[in-house]
Amino acid sequence: MAIKRIGSQTVKMANPPSIISTATIVGPKEGEGPLKDYFDLILEDDLWQQESWEKSESKMQEEVLKMALTKANLSEGNMDYLFSGDLLNQIVVSSYSARQLSIPYFGLYGACSTMSESLSLGAMIIDGGFADKVACCTSSHFSTAERQYRYPLEYGNQRTFSAQWTVTGAGASILSSEGNGPYITYVTTGRVIDPGIVDVNNMGAAMAPAAIDTISKHFIDTGYNPDDYDLIITGDLGAIGKSIVIDLMGKEGYDLSKVYDDCGVRIFDNEAQDTHAGGSGCGCSAVVFNGFVYNQLLNGSFKRVLLISTGALHSPITMQQGESIPGIAHAVTITNVKE
Amino acid sequence: MAIKRIGSQTVKMANPPSIISTATIVGPKEGEGPLKDYFDLILEDDLWQQESWEKSESKMQEEVLKMALTKANLSEGNMDYLFSGDLLNQIVVSSYSARQLSIPYFGLYGACSTMSESLSLGAMIIDGGFADKVACCTSSHFSTAERQYRYPLEYGNQRTFSAQWTVTGAGASILSSEGNGPYITYVTTGRVIDPGIVDVNNMGAAMAPAAIDTISKHFIDTGYNPDDYDLIITGDLGAIGKSIVIDLMGKEGYDLSKVYDDCGVRIFDNEAQDTHAGGSGCGCSAVVFNGFVYNQLLNGSFKRVLLISTGALHSPITMQQGESIPGIAHAVTITNVKE
Repeated sequence: MAIKRIGSQTVKMANPPSIISTATIVGPKEGEGPLKDYFDLILEDDLWQQESWEKSESKMQEEVLKMALTKANLSEGNMDYLFSGDLLNQIVVSSYSARQLSIPYFGLYGACSTMSESLSLGAMIIDGGFADKVACCTSSHFSTAERQYRYPLEYGNQRTFSAQWTVTGAGASILSSEGNGPYITYVTTGRVIDPGIVDVNNMGAAMAPAAIDTISKHFIDTGYNPDDYDLIITGDLGAIGKSIVIDLMGKEGYDLSKVYDDCGVRIFDNEAQDTHAGGSGCGCSAVVFNGFVYNQLLNGSFKRVLLISTGALHSPITMQQGESIPGIAHAVTITNVKE
Repeated sequence: MAIKRIGSQTVKMANPPSIISTATIVGPKEGEGPLKDYFDLILEDDLWQQESWEKSESKMQEEVLKMALTKANLSEGNMDYLFSGDLLNQIVVSSYSARQLSIPYFGLYGACSTMSESLSLGAMIIDGGFADKVACCTSSHFSTAERQYRYPLEYGNQRTFSAQWTVTGAGASILSSEGNGPYITYVTTGRVIDPGIVDVNNMGAAMAPAAIDTISKHFIDTGYNPDDYDLIITGDLGAIGKSIVIDLMGKEGYDLSKVYDDCGVRIFDNEAQDTHAGGSGCGCSAVVFNGFVYNQLLNGSFKRVLLISTGALHSPITMQQGESIPGIAHAVTITNVKE
């Protein structure tokens, strides 16, 4: 086994890369939610003067990357690689925004697990000595996702209570081999786990077993326990998925109740904003991590965070063909000090 | 700059990973083509006793990975990571086959550049010390791609002469930190290049500028010339894209005519098999590389190969919205001896 590998699914960085800057852009609804003070730009209109929502989402990725670069006093030419992905067919949002940026580009598809997938690969590529500076980015958009995965918005379908609300948001992280943190110290990569759920309006339950699998493996591989973290936060399990994680992790002997939360639960006020089970989408963990969580790491409120972005790997076609919804979850540890 | 980085887009492996085994599965039409002797399994029927072509393609990825593992005397449990992707919406072929394999999984989307994208990341992750064994896999299927990107097969639309034929095929490579080669020695990662082409029946021309950009950067970054290679082979530019590459690379001062070919040109007998401009799809470079090229590297006929899988990053939605087709190309050098 290679020396950086410390378990069946986890690797430890030898010289942990720094997240030297982040940026976030969100839509109007997210900008009215409880985390509004942590976003860099709140759009007044989710079309953002573009001809289509797809073009608006692409502009969001392009601009959020430029904002993160500006904050770090860097330009596109300083970036060795861009890792990005999104929810749309053929990840066109990411590819068309990458077209505007002259950075060597690895396109990813991990559904809503993309933020931690990109941070995982970006950190390993830097720690492996292949890059000094890497950009990691993802996004989702309520209006592009809704019409691709569900119904035309004009149809006005009624939402079930287990349904989640796709976040309109884009988040970017700039990673560097040098810097003063926060640092990416561990990466635990998920396997595809399928609990057999076929209800596309209950994604939290479909993804929760993948999150549980990855979090458990992370504890086993690293020897850490929930108490070693200030925050353990999943990507977009929402209220239903969150309660499954607390319940089933408890049965495995891990009490997560004091430190665990979910980006999909945090981003909206589900009562006041009528978002039912909470937020979802690649953009959900992207803006909560790059906004609120990064801020709390910088100011020292959080010293050790486990981010587990969670993805549902189905498509409308596989649902029509009677398949169930497989899930995946990728975890990264982010700390104030090098470990 | 990190020491392994030798130019703006290229990295050199410190201890080049070995490709210790490969496997290929193709459809009936590919099995009648000029490279038929190099494939491990030729299907008699592209539905392969499944309920849908999508399920058949997923089975192809699952089985081709198992075949490659068997050849290397390894099992799923020996694999540290799986890097895979495909052309279908939400890369469901890759995710549903990964569900059957208990391997930590990074989903990729690079359209038809996926084979060299997965080899690039797999090689870097091993050389970076994060893994001993990595599986890289991709596929495409004429019948799943045709109905997703173009028309229902039942419609029987007439094909233009610049159109290419999506290869039904899956290919897998097993990479290892130890082994006797062939070795992955250099990785040149592409940028998104958009020549402004809007004709989805002329993908070769849309992708050729990306291939030219990556090949040129590879020569500049490494100091090598066309004569240093026994074969320089692009993924699926077809006859039109191939002629553009030879022409424009010549104008940049590189005579590729003696060593250059294209997987899309090689896989079919375009005259006898009526495939017009040639083959395409993620599976095209996957089966030509993991079949024919790997065989020639093993027997010493090729000592140094540059594989440049090429992808078109559009979607049917972006075409409907009046966008052009951006391309990308990722290059990997594979050699008989460690460099």
